[in-house]
Amino acid sequence: MAEELSFPTGLGTSTPETISLLGQDLAADLMGKVGFGELAFWLVAGRRPSSSEVRLFEAVLVALADHGFTPTAIAARLTYLSAPDSLQGALAAGLLGGGSRFLGVTEDCGRFLAETLVAAGTERDYDVIALEAVKKAREQKKFIPGLGHPVHKELDPRTPVLIAIAEEEGLRGPHLRLFEAIGRVHPQVLGKTLPLNGAGVCGAALADLGLPTDLLRGFALLARAAGLLGQLAEERRRPIANQIYLTVDRNAVYEPRED
Amino acid sequence: MAEELSFPTGLGTSTPETISLLGQDLAADLMGKVGFGELAFWLVAGRRPSSSEVRLFEAVLVALADHGFTPTAIAARLTYLSAPDSLQGALAAGLLGGGSRFLGVTEDCGRFLAETLVAAGTERDYDVIALEAVKKAREQKKFIPGLGHPVHKELDPRTPVLIAIAEEEGLRGPHLRLFEAIGRVHPQVLGKTLPLNGAGVCGAALADLGLPTDLLRGFALLARAAGLLGQLAEERRRPIANQIYLTVDRNAVYEPRED
Amino acid sequence: MAEELSFPTGLGTSTPETISLLGQDLAADLMGKVGFGELAFWLVAGRRPSSSEVRLFEAVLVALADHGFTPTAIAARLTYLSAPDSLQGALAAGLLGGGSRFLGVTEDCGRFLAETLVAAGTERDYDVIALEAVKKAREQKKFIPGLGHPVHKELDPRTPVLIAIAEEEGLRGPHLRLFEAIGRVHPQVLGKTLPLNGAGVCGAALADLGLPTDLLRGFALLARAAGLLGQLAEERRRPIANQIYLTVDRNAVYEPRED
Amino acid sequence: MAEELSFPTGLGTSTPETISLLGQDLAADLMGKVGFGELAFWLVAGRRPSSSEVRLFEAVLVALADHGFTPTAIAARLTYLSAPDSLQGALAAGLLGGGSRFLGVTEDCGRFLAETLVAAGTERDYDVIALEAVKKAREQKKFIPGLGHPVHKELDPRTPVLIAIAEEEGLRGPHLRLFEAIGRVHPQVLGKTLPLNGAGVCGAALADLGLPTDLLRGFALLARAAGLLGQLAEERRRPIANQIYLTVDRNAVYEPRED
Repeated sequence: MAEELSFPTGLGTSTPETISLLGQDLAADLMGKVGFGELAFWLVAGRRPSSSEVRLFEAVLVALADHGFTPTAIAARLTYLSAPDSLQGALAAGLLGGGSRFLGVTEDCGRFLAETLVAAGTERDYDVIALEAVKKAREQKKFIPGLGHPVHKELDPRTPVLIAIAEEEGLRGPHLRLFEAIGRVHPQVLGKTLPLNGAGVCGAALADLGLPTDLLRGFALLARAAGLLGQLAEERRRPIANQIYLTVDRNAVYEPRED
Repeated sequence: MAEELSFPTGLGTSTPETISLLGQDLAADLMGKVGFGELAFWLVAGRRPSSSEVRLFEAVLVALADHGFTPTAIAARLTYLSAPDSLQGALAAGLLGGGSRFLGVTEDCGRFLAETLVAAGTERDYDVIALEAVKKAREQKKFIPGLGHPVHKELDPRTPVLIAIAEEEGLRGPHLRLFEAIGRVHPQVLGKTLPLNGAGVCGAALADLGLPTDLLRGFALLARAAGLLGQLAEERRRPIANQIYLTVDRNAVYEPRED
Repeated sequence: MAEELSFPTGLGTSTPETISLLGQDLAADLMGKVGFGELAFWLVAGRRPSSSEVRLFEAVLVALADHGFTPTAIAARLTYLSAPDSLQGALAAGLLGGGSRFLGVTEDCGRFLAETLVAAGTERDYDVIALEAVKKAREQKKFIPGLGHPVHKELDPRTPVLIAIAEEEGLRGPHLRLFEAIGRVHPQVLGKTLPLNGAGVCGAALADLGLPTDLLRGFALLARAAGLLGQLAEERRRPIANQIYLTVDRNAVYEPRED
Repeated sequence: MAEELSFPTGLGTSTPETISLLGQDLAADLMGKVGFGELAFWLVAGRRPSSSEVRLFEAVLVALADHGFTPTAIAARLTYLSAPDSLQGALAAGLLGGGSRFLGVTEDCGRFLAETLVAAGTERDYDVIALEAVKKAREQKKFIPGLGHPVHKELDPRTPVLIAIAEEEGLRGPHLRLFEAIGRVHPQVLGKTLPLNGAGVCGAALADLGLPTDLLRGFALLARAAGLLGQLAEERRRPIANQIYLTVDRNAVYEPRED
């Protein structure tokens, strides 16, 4: 069957003489002139970020890159142990844990803030909006994404630093302000004080940067890709995955399924 | 069974008050002060790069981020079509194509150059070393990694630009010089002139940056993670994966296996 | 830190002399005596299926194994093209498309039927239950999982066959009966007649087999693993992935992002 | 660009009325009439296996399905912990460990035996061929795939059982016979007696079944897919991944990189 095919793209194309990316000449205009974080932002947002936006964006990526021996880091190391010939497989295995529970908080928080702002209509007082949102979440027995942390029970040190960077760069927008307001007002509803966590503040900052909330998880994944490479480089030099495996295997206890 | 367990790491650890990464205070010393590419280098190499090194390193990442509708970009888009709820799965599917044939050239070229330099012993004339290496590869009927390109048959525009950046930053080291020498001498052995391709020159530059040759593929994967996010963001806004699928499916022809 | 560790499992354990699986001696009691589908059922359900259950279960796996050039099959082939050294990567890439849109129908349908039966309480007339469920879905502007097919617009040939097998084996239970009732009553609500599709009837049959509805997608993935191996074996013998890639790449058209 | 496209396949195709697979009518000829293992064999080999071949083939799949808390099983469970919404991601993460070190033995052993038989030319005495092969491997300081096991140091119980099944079914062919001969002769070369392991004997049996040696790893992956579903079903009912994660994380010790 003969057919007219056309696959449009605003990203990369090439001719025998040139390579274009985002409408720019890759070699002449981008290489050596645009940073990697800057390019990542541009690729997803479709617009070149300002240097202030780059600084805040890269601070987010730095904040999310590595959190030590997370389940995803351990999964990547174990996969590398089993299949050392396939670095891409070990990296992919680590990223596959970037779902709802761990890396998902960044996206969930950004989306929650964005939806809450839309629902708030013309209300401009962030504390009022926040109070309403926390009350509603409590009624629905839902957690507020970005609130609480298993280790940093009082203060997540990333949170004030990221807000300060946003402030310095003139990018402390409505999502961050609402997030801060949630930090102020939630104790009067929940009866206890929880910290604003780092994954959540990153989601708020990415939303203030105008990035699409459906893709915020993607930036957490990009950041984590760098962290996982660090984990795999360390596993190669100073391996621990075999010890982890043996620790589990040697302590296996057979217990028949009870049901 | 009670046992003493100890899992050493030089990457991330945390206490209730602080988060450390690479021995630094993540919030106080890294966020907003270290770029994302810089951190990725540091995580893998275990040392902080100079600003010259960062510029060359980020130029490599920018060069490798996106090459248009590659098999990996198409695989990521098709996976996103099938499972739009799992962005991490679509990204992982795209990265899984980062194997021997496409993204592997960067690593293969870096390793080939490093091994050739070791084998060259005290010889210092790059043209002599290159001539020997090209002759040997021809005898063994092997391809030289980084030589030739299906589209850029005369000149890959990334190659001279990356060499110029390395020169500007004082980082045009033995791997790049040997790669250039291969570009000069191969016609007299192969009887035809092939371009030095972009993936290859990136491998040479990463090797000159002192990064471990076994992990060069990892940087290609990190760069490609950004490119794949760009592809998925575009797929979300202006989808083509369904058209690709239908193009294949509608032109399926049943032909029984002949053997 | 010394600690007592214990990781319970009812699956596999081994001593220097024996290998146990599911409390059986793998070599003496399972190999050559238990079929592969039978073992898969046992592993997930925690009980050995009857021969009738095995026949219905394997019929479902056979029905779901391969659907030709699906997006997942194409993604697996493209990944194999890029990284032929990593068969596991190509298989994994294919399975990653087993999400909400394509393979998910089996799980969605099984869960929908199970939830509808629970909500129906003491009502025993399947047509009454079905009519209520279809009306409610229509009010909520939701699709009924398992209803409709893009190609088999009148009848999906798998549906009557699977129901007949279930009937023969005495396993045509409430989920299948409710699914059939939906097939009878939906036209009077929707004003058009849609076929009960194969993915849906498989979900109903798996639910009637007592398998956990949260894991029904897993059986679709297992079935698809066999189909993907068939696709990759064919790609190895008679490759088409490169032609697919070139078809897309050659018809790429640069269109700048409009927003 | 209009073009004639044609994508040949001997697997699945469909029309509005019928679904074909392998040239058969899926609903009329395969569902309920062909077992799942039988179909998997047919899909890869392109021919329908005999009932004897099915029995041996399924015995291999059963032998390889689950080996307890392997690195791949742990990686799958950790990924499920992080991203419980994406069962396909957890399964894919587990399969990605199916590389050179663990699941690869089956393929490596089948290939080693096949290559040794080809190299043996007209020699028909398996002990002579085996002795030559073991000597050569020792000279090249290579391991013989399929020889030795970390736990079953004297006898892997799967090995005699699989050989017996092959014998019963008239399928004890040259690969299995050569593997057995290696078991007999290697002590006189290596000076110690190692067991023929289960992964190796499975590779030998798959090669005797005429399956392509390049794809033997694929059957190990298919078998493991069932085992991983069992692991994930157990993780859902009686979770241990969080305890594994905490065991590692709590015993993390910061040690700066020394080089």
